[in-house]
Amino acid sequence: MSQNIYDRSEFFEGYSRLGRSVQGLDGAAEWPALRALLPELGGRRVVDLGCGFGWFCRHAREAGAASVLGLDLSENMLARARVDTADPAITYARADLETLNLPEGGFDFAYSSLTLHYVEALARLFGVVHRALAPGGAFLFSAEHPIFTAPSAPGWSVDPAGRKVWPVDGYLEEGPRRTDWLTKGVIKQHRSIGTYLNLLIAQGFGIAHVQEWGPSDAQIAEKPVLADERLRPAFLLVAARRN
Amino acid sequence: MSQNIYDRSEFFEGYSRLGRSVQGLDGAAEWPALRALLPELGGRRVVDLGCGFGWFCRHAREAGAASVLGLDLSENMLARARVDTADPAITYARADLETLNLPEGGFDFAYSSLTLHYVEALARLFGVVHRALAPGGAFLFSAEHPIFTAPSAPGWSVDPAGRKVWPVDGYLEEGPRRTDWLTKGVIKQHRSIGTYLNLLIAQGFGIAHVQEWGPSDAQIAEKPVLADERLRPAFLLVAARRN
Repeated sequence: MSQNIYDRSEFFEGYSRLGRSVQGLDGAAEWPALRALLPELGGRRVVDLGCGFGWFCRHAREAGAASVLGLDLSENMLARARVDTADPAITYARADLETLNLPEGGFDFAYSSLTLHYVEALARLFGVVHRALAPGGAFLFSAEHPIFTAPSAPGWSVDPAGRKVWPVDGYLEEGPRRTDWLTKGVIKQHRSIGTYLNLLIAQGFGIAHVQEWGPSDAQIAEKPVLADERLRPAFLLVAARRN
Repeated sequence: MSQNIYDRSEFFEGYSRLGRSVQGLDGAAEWPALRALLPELGGRRVVDLGCGFGWFCRHAREAGAASVLGLDLSENMLARARVDTADPAITYARADLETLNLPEGGFDFAYSSLTLHYVEALARLFGVVHRALAPGGAFLFSAEHPIFTAPSAPGWSVDPAGRKVWPVDGYLEEGPRRTDWLTKGVIKQHRSIGTYLNLLIAQGFGIAHVQEWGPSDAQIAEKPVLADERLRPAFLLVAARRN
């Protein structure tokens, strides 16, 4: 059973106040990059692993998806997601990605936003997703970037020349990282980019695109605080295909 | 024309004293990992981009390669490589990887060790390599890892808790990095892992394996100073296939 931080009231209240929770996809700075990697969704059967408040599920339907299954561990998030739509082609269900099963060939596109760095049994999950996709199906996910998850003390520091730097250690020591984010003791799974990609390849996926996300010049002009996010990538975006 | 640091006497003398220059492949800590990613070489036509002293070219022939073409920009290195073998199936030639041309379909395997981070026109070179490989051909390379090349001040520092850390900045600012290594003003090209992989994919390669290299426990036991190399990866190893 996964750690269910989103159903802790302290975490859920903090998370609900984030830009991405209030404004939806447009409140997530990496959304334009993810959107650019989406396949054509018209008529497709979509599954969203870690759907949260359901923003992407509703987007997929607006983009013409035939059906969308949104999965999440958090009852709180699913409850709000259900309130926010009456679309009968969107189904929300509670699921633990550590033990998930999906119908074979039941989907054309699998999506996951900032969820997989919580999953311990990632090889298993990639296998489940691969089998759940019809041949030619696509898988797009974002996760916290390994440079972001690696450090024993994640946070900016200033070097002797006054430059802001991100102090990397432990990069090749994969495994749990305990951090305080909105609540104490959030457990994330650190793994290298190589591991993410090799696990996909081992399950039969072809790698289509790998993006280490940073804000565009236009995004920085609009919101200057984002400039730091070019010093080290916070997010890893991967597009893969079922061959 | 590329910067030809290997033909500066100061650099060449320093480089010639490194373990990997004196002991050959076994003097390079990442060699066991690279070797594990090699395809079967028996009967194959091999090209080595940045062959240096020719250690890999000779290895490929010992492993049964039908022919080996070793390419390097450095006259110094090619001169020593030529002295070290009389094998008529090994050819050494001077080449600038920025402007290289290779015969189409002329090779079954392309290899490059710690050279591509010097190459500016990498998309062009990946295209040349792709066309030079017969269908099903393989490409294996190592390069300095982007975490290693990114910083404006590359070098270990110590955090307030006394931990050794690698201060990352500039990760998403791709382009030249000027460093002092064996000689002053060595120019390297920093690019993200995503860029390396997407350039390969754009040229038609399939990604077969991505390894962010660190020493094994056995290597650290034998040479404890290597332990730091697990804090942040120094090398990126990529295996790709011509589809």
